[in-house]
Amino acid sequence: MKPRSDAEHTAKMKKIQAAHEKKKATKTIEKGLVIVHTGTGKGKTSAALGMVVRAIGHGMKIGVVQFVKGAMATGEKAVFDRFADQVEFKPMGEGFTWDTQDRARDIAVARTAWEEVKRMIADSSYNMVLADELNIVLRYEYLPVGEVLEALAAKPEMTHVIITGRNAPQPLIDAADLVTEMASVKHPFREQNVKAQPGIEF
Amino acid sequence: MKPRSDAEHTAKMKKIQAAHEKKKATKTIEKGLVIVHTGTGKGKTSAALGMVVRAIGHGMKIGVVQFVKGAMATGEKAVFDRFADQVEFKPMGEGFTWDTQDRARDIAVARTAWEEVKRMIADSSYNMVLADELNIVLRYEYLPVGEVLEALAAKPEMTHVIITGRNAPQPLIDAADLVTEMASVKHPFREQNVKAQPGIEF
Repeated sequence: MKPRSDAEHTAKMKKIQAAHEKKKATKTIEKGLVIVHTGTGKGKTSAALGMVVRAIGHGMKIGVVQFVKGAMATGEKAVFDRFADQVEFKPMGEGFTWDTQDRARDIAVARTAWEEVKRMIADSSYNMVLADELNIVLRYEYLPVGEVLEALAAKPEMTHVIITGRNAPQPLIDAADLVTEMASVKHPFREQNVKAQPGIEF
Repeated sequence: MKPRSDAEHTAKMKKIQAAHEKKKATKTIEKGLVIVHTGTGKGKTSAALGMVVRAIGHGMKIGVVQFVKGAMATGEKAVFDRFADQVEFKPMGEGFTWDTQDRARDIAVARTAWEEVKRMIADSSYNMVLADELNIVLRYEYLPVGEVLEALAAKPEMTHVIITGRNAPQPLIDAADLVTEMASVKHPFREQNVKAQPGIEF
């Protein structure tokens, strides 16, 4: 941006503020959101965790079900444990799907995890439900997307549901309120031979 | 994807597993990363918070400086307070820049916040430093990007530094290890007149 005088700056900021206030005045609806984090970049699960942290801070009750990375969730687990009265954490996934190599078993695990999510969504005492990496399960067709759409359509009005994972199916995107695509601009794991590190990946 | 037999599935998964293991074997480097979350979509700050949560879980010491949204950080603050021995949280920003309309004051606030970040980065007892919305400050030229690059170049080897905010300047992207762009696919705040809600935006 080219430098401006202080007076020009103030005028510009006044304009932005007025536009912002005007826009904000039209935003009156409060509702539980269906949120999808997808894309091949990093940050899908991390951003969902960030929302869980905010929800904890607001005294909400949160259910978290991890579909495929149970074994790696050491970092978040330690924090959730400290808020066990608010966060129900179910790391259901047993390693990545290519480690099990047993479709029938993967489908059974996905089914069990999904039943937990469904129960949490249907129970209005949960303010937020995170189905982490559910998209992977849908992508492998371990679970029909129709069942997920059905549960979302019937959810209590104020419940937020967050679904993460690359390759979100289009019907889920269509049904969602808020969809963010995390796109990789630079990734050290791929480009610099940096390994997955505590605090970042798990 | 078209349905496969169980045998085909197992063979495919074995292949993916082998490729994954081979790739993982080349990833041997551990180092502190410079991480940038940018783009116009949601999740930049949330994903950084998620990394802070993981770092907390691993017993790390973390410094968090918020450049422009101090007043909104009620959710995360409550959680950080519970881990006050590990997280040093400095909400320095006083509202958005269009609310202050005073460039000289904004520059002074940005400067004070940056001095905190610089101090944390230089002190190797911090494992992770989050400079939240620093990109906004750089965009408005309240702080020269060269100063930031200098501090990053001199950082202790194992310290992770996370910088968030839209419009990350190119020199910062060039200097970073991991850059993710959060792209908005669907945004209820814009499209459905849904207002900012606790647990999601703050």
